[in-house]
Amino acid sequence: MNRKSKGINAERELIHQLWGIGIPAVRVAGSGSMKYPSPDIIAFSNNQTLIFECKASIENKKYISNADVNQLIEFANKTNSKAYIAVKFTNKGWFFVETNDLIKTKENYVISLDIVKEKKLDFQNTIKKYKKLD
Amino acid sequence: MNRKSKGINAERELIHQLWGIGIPAVRVAGSGSMKYPSPDIIAFSNNQTLIFECKASIENKKYISNADVNQLIEFANKTNSKAYIAVKFTNKGWFFVETNDLIKTKENYVISLDIVKEKKLDFQNTIKKYKKLD
Repeated sequence: MNRKSKGINAERELIHQLWGIGIPAVRVAGSGSMKYPSPDIIAFSNNQTLIFECKASIENKKYISNADVNQLIEFANKTNSKAYIAVKFTNKGWFFVETNDLIKTKENYVISLDIVKEKKLDFQNTIKKYKKLD
Repeated sequence: MNRKSKGINAERELIHQLWGIGIPAVRVAGSGSMKYPSPDIIAFSNNQTLIFECKASIENKKYISNADVNQLIEFANKTNSKAYIAVKFTNKGWFFVETNDLIKTKENYVISLDIVKEKKLDFQNTIKKYKKLD
């Protein structure tokens, strides 16, 4: 399986998890092919739109480019959405970092598995609070 | 160009039109590949999410299946969105029909070019009112 397919499969897994707690979610099509900012996933909780830029990592650290972060913030601002960088660490599951909690490096941003584990930024603690109430 | 590519190009054109009036819009990825309801396009106006099921027609009538309409309504209800069937009639441009304004046939629904022209359901009259104010 190539890298793109793996990314899509990871995104689909997150969409399943969101629908699983009653939050409608969709995957955004080929954001690369148009010039506009766009997230990878959009989800709809009660009166709160959530947007996710999704990454996967087999290492314990994931670097995120300024461009990725900036376009996510731009889209969030234009749509009044709550933005998260969602990182799936291999065998550790998904973690969710708000853009203003990202750690800046010289060149870009970094998300460290140790820190997101310590801060308990997993699905249960960050996303489940948005669980949709009927 | 095959039918799928034509459909995608038409959707991209509508996304350009929406961004052109300041409304952020995205194309939803391969709705067919997951079991959940989903629209083709999601757009974000002031406090109003708009969702579109997109169709193209070279004829003066376009039939829309019950399944397409029902899953659009389901998604709209779950996300408090405003739903439109968007039909691009060749050389006539886009028209936007609310789901409860669709005309029921024996088997499905139909959108007629004559009627949408008469009712002036074009972009200018139906969508431009959502134009985003900063």
